[in-house]
Amino acid sequence: MRISELSSATNVPVATIKYYLREKLLPEGQRTSATQASYTDAHIERLRVIRALVDSGVGIAGVRRVVAALDAPPDSAYDLLGEAHAAVTPLPSVDADPAEAERLVARIGWYPGACTPEQLAAVARALDTLAAAGFEIPAETMDVYLDSVRAIAEVEIAHVPTESPADAVRYVVLGTALVEPLLLALRRVAEQVVAAERFG
Amino acid sequence: MRISELSSATNVPVATIKYYLREKLLPEGQRTSATQASYTDAHIERLRVIRALVDSGVGIAGVRRVVAALDAPPDSAYDLLGEAHAAVTPLPSVDADPAEAERLVARIGWYPGACTPEQLAAVARALDTLAAAGFEIPAETMDVYLDSVRAIAEVEIAHVPTESPADAVRYVVLGTALVEPLLLALRRVAEQVVAAERFG
Repeated sequence: MRISELSSATNVPVATIKYYLREKLLPEGQRTSATQASYTDAHIERLRVIRALVDSGVGIAGVRRVVAALDAPPDSAYDLLGEAHAAVTPLPSVDADPAEAERLVARIGWYPGACTPEQLAAVARALDTLAAAGFEIPAETMDVYLDSVRAIAEVEIAHVPTESPADAVRYVVLGTALVEPLLLALRRVAEQVVAAERFG
Repeated sequence: MRISELSSATNVPVATIKYYLREKLLPEGQRTSATQASYTDAHIERLRVIRALVDSGVGIAGVRRVVAALDAPPDSAYDLLGEAHAAVTPLPSVDADPAEAERLVARIGWYPGACTPEQLAAVARALDTLAAAGFEIPAETMDVYLDSVRAIAEVEIAHVPTESPADAVRYVVLGTALVEPLLLALRRVAEQVVAAERFG
C-alpha cells in the first residue's frame, strides 16, 4: 500500500509516519519509484505498537529500544524479559540506597542478581520519595502490596507466549507499558468504590 | 526561620522556594522587614509535600489542586477522597467509550455514580490503548488484576486517618501519587523474579 493508505489504515498522519521513518522506528518501505514506496501489513502492526507506546507516555528513546528488541530478540527468554522491561523503564536516579528496597523485594522472592540494578533502583527511589514526603505505608498495607504484585507477576508470566521470541517481547513490552495505566486507573476506581462503601 | 534556613532544612534552592511563593503553592511567611520574612515548620512540611508531588511527576496545576484541598478540605470524607484523587489524576481524554470500563469495574463493586467520570474515563482510555495496540489481557490475568486492586483499596481505605480532614487528604493525595511509582516498580521486580524462576 502507499503511505497515504498506511496513514488511513492507522489513523497516523503522513508527516508523523515520515518522522518515524527518519527516526528509523519504522522500516523503509519497498521503493516503487524515486518518490514512492510500498508498505505492508507489518508496517501497520509496527505503527500500532509505536502509537500505543507513545500514547502511554514512552519517549522516542524508549520506543527505539522496544523496536530494537522486537527486531532482534535476545536468545534467552530471561534476558529477553529484562531487555523488554528495560526498554520501557524510565532512567532511574542512581543515588538511591538499595538496602531497604532489597529487604522489601526479598519478600516477593528477590535475591541478588534476580533483576537489573535499574529495576531495584526504581523501588529504592519510590521509597525515598515516600520517606521524603513523610508518608509511612502501614505494615499491613505493604503486605497486601507485596502479595498483590507477586500474584500479578505469576499470572502474567504464566501467560508469556513461548512460540516465538518476537511474540514474547511484544507481550512483555506492551504488558508492562500499557497495562500500567490500566492498573493505576483500576486502583483509583477501587479506592473510590471502597471509600463510598465506608463513608458514602 | 529565614528563607535561607528554610532552604537548608528542605534542600530546596531559595530560587525554587521563591517560585513556589509566587505561584502561591507555599503561603507567604510573616513579614519581618521590607525584604525579609519568617517561615515556620508548617512551611517545611508544605515544601516536602510539594517536592514529593513534583518529584513523582505531578505538574504545577496538580500541585495547586492538592494544596487547595489541603488548605480547605471538603466536608464529607467521600467528597474529600474524590477531590484528593482528582488533584493527582491527569486530564483524561473524554472520547473513550465507558461501556467496557463500566462492565469491568462492576466486578470490583462499582455502580453508576460510585466514582467521577474522569476516573472511569481513565480506565476506558487504558482499555482503548491496549485494544489499539492489539494487546489482549487473558481473562485469568484480568481476574487477578481486579482482585488485587480491590484488596489494595480495602487495606488502604481501612487506614485512612479520620482524626482530621487535612490528615485524610494528605494520606489520600500522597498515597495515590507517591505509592503508584512504588507499586509499578514492585510489579516489574516481581515479574523479573517470577520470570527467573520460570526461565532463568
